[in-house]
Amino acid sequence: MYDLVIIGSGPAGLSAAVYAKRAMLDVVVLEKEAFSGGQIVNTEQVDNYLGLPGTNGYDLAMKFKEHADALEVPFKEGDVTAIADQGDYRTVELEDGEILETKTILIATGAKHKHLGADGEEELMGAGVSYCATCDGAFFRNKDVVVVGGGDVALGDALYLAKGCRKVYLVHRRDGFRAAKVLQEKVEQTGNIEFLPFYEVAGIHGEGMVSSVTLLQNQTKEEKELEVSGIFVAVGMEPETGFAKGVVDMDQAGYIVADETGVTSTKGIFVAGDVRTKALRQVATAVSDGANAITSIEKFLE
Amino acid sequence: MYDLVIIGSGPAGLSAAVYAKRAMLDVVVLEKEAFSGGQIVNTEQVDNYLGLPGTNGYDLAMKFKEHADALEVPFKEGDVTAIADQGDYRTVELEDGEILETKTILIATGAKHKHLGADGEEELMGAGVSYCATCDGAFFRNKDVVVVGGGDVALGDALYLAKGCRKVYLVHRRDGFRAAKVLQEKVEQTGNIEFLPFYEVAGIHGEGMVSSVTLLQNQTKEEKELEVSGIFVAVGMEPETGFAKGVVDMDQAGYIVADETGVTSTKGIFVAGDVRTKALRQVATAVSDGANAITSIEKFLE
Repeated sequence: MYDLVIIGSGPAGLSAAVYAKRAMLDVVVLEKEAFSGGQIVNTEQVDNYLGLPGTNGYDLAMKFKEHADALEVPFKEGDVTAIADQGDYRTVELEDGEILETKTILIATGAKHKHLGADGEEELMGAGVSYCATCDGAFFRNKDVVVVGGGDVALGDALYLAKGCRKVYLVHRRDGFRAAKVLQEKVEQTGNIEFLPFYEVAGIHGEGMVSSVTLLQNQTKEEKELEVSGIFVAVGMEPETGFAKGVVDMDQAGYIVADETGVTSTKGIFVAGDVRTKALRQVATAVSDGANAITSIEKFLE
Repeated sequence: MYDLVIIGSGPAGLSAAVYAKRAMLDVVVLEKEAFSGGQIVNTEQVDNYLGLPGTNGYDLAMKFKEHADALEVPFKEGDVTAIADQGDYRTVELEDGEILETKTILIATGAKHKHLGADGEEELMGAGVSYCATCDGAFFRNKDVVVVGGGDVALGDALYLAKGCRKVYLVHRRDGFRAAKVLQEKVEQTGNIEFLPFYEVAGIHGEGMVSSVTLLQNQTKEEKELEVSGIFVAVGMEPETGFAKGVVDMDQAGYIVADETGVTSTKGIFVAGDVRTKALRQVATAVSDGANAITSIEKFLE
């Protein structure tokens, strides 16, 4: 019987692990990937986590993991398929059928990339359709690509791709951007980025590899065909909470309802990071969530 | 007219400054001390800010300040005596009479050490009475000292002082500790720390320098005299909010009422870090607060 099972080892899960070890809890961290760090692993640069300016996302993830390793946090690879409240204790079920018993659970599974739902998207995934510019951008050197979205990630992707690609079309269903102003200014100053406002992706085409994308102007309904080799989708995230459906309260988008304390609707189950309802999903707020959740968990265990 | 005046340059204020610059706000950071970093400047070691394990507090403060400097955050030395909401804008008044006009204010002034209120405490301050073991501990090498308190800071101070002092009396008005279990175990394992539960400090004595302390057992009312050269007070913090009394809602202890968004009861005035009502006051939660507050401020300015 563990004191605490932490599900996920992004910034929230790792920060929680550090606090849990310092509180001398009998803890294990579950991660379904072969590496820790969550979304930042695929981030070109994190420049707003105080004290570590301009750090490559992968390097930041390694620093985070090393911090947990220095405190001898135990990790276990495993994909969680279900969790349950058994009254006096709680259970975590893994894909291979193993069931862990624990006094408390911390859900820190984060969020994953949303898909467009466009024709051809699923078929051509990994064959020109990508959700990670920093992972796949290098394959499109001197080629033309589309970036879809209007947030920090979309504009950051466009800027990153513009360095190596011949042309980057930035497609957004609205006119304005949600992205930070500093990114907007940089996009305006970059000659090989063309902004296409009020366009949506209607279809992605190609035999084996992406060769073109059909756009739809959402006001005039005019169609536009772009001959491109790749399309990078950056239209937001959705929480990884399928395994917890019906166990804890979630909002309509599937985010687990909790304030900064991480206390959920179900006793003994806590939440931290991007996967909870919150205004700002950033490394700094995830790290803070991890610390706060352990404070709540210590209080619960007493 | 500034977009934003940030009052205080601890982890919350500096994190907010980094986010403010990235949001291209016209910002200035006010600090009444000659240096940035807030409380961590006087902390022996910060080991739970993810990614920077086992960092000396002063070094961590420098890293934080360098991050802000890299983004060319403007700083100004000044002690704020009053703030006011003027309807369409807000004002910040400095000790020298200067008045800054700004669209928004972020209060990130943190908290300062509480005093005991014991006889002799104010008279012998700096002459054996200290609120910072890492600042003053070296003066008490091979001497006997008292540490007062039962939280992380008190136990951390006792452990730090035990390395150089002959004997450390750890005086606490209760039996149990609020401190992290890892610190409690270390204290128990340290031979020259003597724990005196249920004792309070009745008086501090000495001619020019501390020479003894009178303790009162709060259950038996028995008095006890300790011949010591120093007394380190670690009984908690109080928020630095005198300049904001009557302007924003505060709780009974003077902390400004706000959730993680940093939105206060007064429009255009925001709060971040230890100075707001919250469950856990740590570097990680302060840094997160700074990021969250800028998100709220950007929304307000739009």
